[in-house]
Amino acid sequence: MALSFKQEAERQMEQIERGVVEIIPREELLRKLEKSIKEKKPLRIKLGLDPTAPDIHLGHTVVLNKLRQFQDLGHEVHLIIGDFTGRIGDPSGKSETRKQLSEDEIMINARTYQEQIYKVLDREKTIMHFNSEWLGRMTFIDVLQLAGKYTVARMMERDDFEKRFKEGLPIGVHELMYPLMQGYDSVALEADVEMGGTDQKFNLLVGRHLLREYGLEPQVALMMPILEGTDGIQKMSKSLGNYIGVSEEPYEMFGKTMSINDRLICRYFELLTRVPMPEIEEMRTKMEKREMNPRDAKMRLAIEIISTFH
Amino acid sequence: MALSFKQEAERQMEQIERGVVEIIPREELLRKLEKSIKEKKPLRIKLGLDPTAPDIHLGHTVVLNKLRQFQDLGHEVHLIIGDFTGRIGDPSGKSETRKQLSEDEIMINARTYQEQIYKVLDREKTIMHFNSEWLGRMTFIDVLQLAGKYTVARMMERDDFEKRFKEGLPIGVHELMYPLMQGYDSVALEADVEMGGTDQKFNLLVGRHLLREYGLEPQVALMMPILEGTDGIQKMSKSLGNYIGVSEEPYEMFGKTMSINDRLICRYFELLTRVPMPEIEEMRTKMEKREMNPRDAKMRLAIEIISTFH
Repeated sequence: MALSFKQEAERQMEQIERGVVEIIPREELLRKLEKSIKEKKPLRIKLGLDPTAPDIHLGHTVVLNKLRQFQDLGHEVHLIIGDFTGRIGDPSGKSETRKQLSEDEIMINARTYQEQIYKVLDREKTIMHFNSEWLGRMTFIDVLQLAGKYTVARMMERDDFEKRFKEGLPIGVHELMYPLMQGYDSVALEADVEMGGTDQKFNLLVGRHLLREYGLEPQVALMMPILEGTDGIQKMSKSLGNYIGVSEEPYEMFGKTMSINDRLICRYFELLTRVPMPEIEEMRTKMEKREMNPRDAKMRLAIEIISTFH
Repeated sequence: MALSFKQEAERQMEQIERGVVEIIPREELLRKLEKSIKEKKPLRIKLGLDPTAPDIHLGHTVVLNKLRQFQDLGHEVHLIIGDFTGRIGDPSGKSETRKQLSEDEIMINARTYQEQIYKVLDREKTIMHFNSEWLGRMTFIDVLQLAGKYTVARMMERDDFEKRFKEGLPIGVHELMYPLMQGYDSVALEADVEMGGTDQKFNLLVGRHLLREYGLEPQVALMMPILEGTDGIQKMSKSLGNYIGVSEEPYEMFGKTMSINDRLICRYFELLTRVPMPEIEEMRTKMEKREMNPRDAKMRLAIEIISTFH
């Protein structure tokens, strides 16, 4: 019997690892999966959303698709709308202190997120939270206790902080609280896994550290790649104009998908569709051997993408 | 009439400047004094006390004597017992993260302070506060707003932080909050002047900055010297054993005062007694000319000190 739990955990792991960049630590996730199967208790998979980008594009869905996979494997997804953290803004990867959002702006953005997100996620297996639920109740003493669990030096190791510090660009003292707040969300939720793009690695590991500091089982950090835009060079981003928005009309999605660089076809299949990996590998081989016209693969890709959102 | 306000302000300034190391900025204090005299409104002079050292020695009274002078000039002294800040401890000048105090320890220390402090201060013109009054009511949002008013880089300029950072010694993120909390005390009080030893310069200037940030008239920072101990070499400190405690018996005070290095006599007179400066200068001259035996000057000093505390 014990062996079959393990086998089932390994089967789940194989699916979970599709497209993933890094799992820290992999063995711990395997143990969590096995325990979850044995005790018939779904894992709590966390994703934090900073409500600053109401227009979701395919780049954002890479992580959402992975969450959907967890749901299909029987696990529970917890989305944290950072209504509280949004008031300071996540400085991750930004070279400047981000403008603080008003409560109204945050609520509008959160609603837009909700509308768009259930095109990918299973609403039944998704639990939404606003982190003001717990962060809004914290006193100054609670904040000091939280802040005392991390050192300035370790915080300054975060790429963007380090860069700004070296360049003499201002970092508000409040910004050091952001990773701690995101980490505390994991404590409040008792998350088993936190997911994010590779740019979130630092924050996810802070969460892992904090769970341990608060005497809880540490979360596993699971990083997905940052999706390249339709140009195949830079990351997909609204401001670079190389994006496909999830609310775009089918004909727009079709046109944009058909325009992508051929190198991206299999990567988009892997990260944006549920087409099984062996089929994708088969297409890759056929295209390499010129037995398949990339145009046909793109057409299938476009249809897969469109059917997800329309 | 305007001239006489100014003259009176200058007369006060002359007394205030006795023994002072630095006033930032001097002209602003002069203007505040003039306004205070004109409007018959006492200045609010602030001193923060971190309740970690219940046994006050003469080193601590240098600042207390200056406060007493302000009181004698008609001003109001506000003592802030850092019951709230004491829970994290002031890392100023310390090479390590200081142990957090329990609420019980803080209350015992605060009571001891009160007993000892009124030997120098005029109880009628002293207002005591516990900074938990305002800091204890702050929410996480309030804390973030406060933290947002200062940058990490400027905070790391503080000598001890810079040193610890360079040496790879840990600085808790919560410790960056300490100068901001002390500064916020000034905001809550609307302090006109904050006093401290030269080791407090950074914190006093943070307070000045915060008052301005909160739309209030900035406080003036007034720094007193750190008193040398009876050995005349290192600063007076209990752990170095070169101190005279304010609760010591008269015969002990006498013996210790008689044992001080001759170089210290006039400095102790200036900083620890109310003997007028011209008299002190006269003694200095006489001793230099060997017209006065230092032993006699010390005897007078001992009597002055003993009569303050007994």
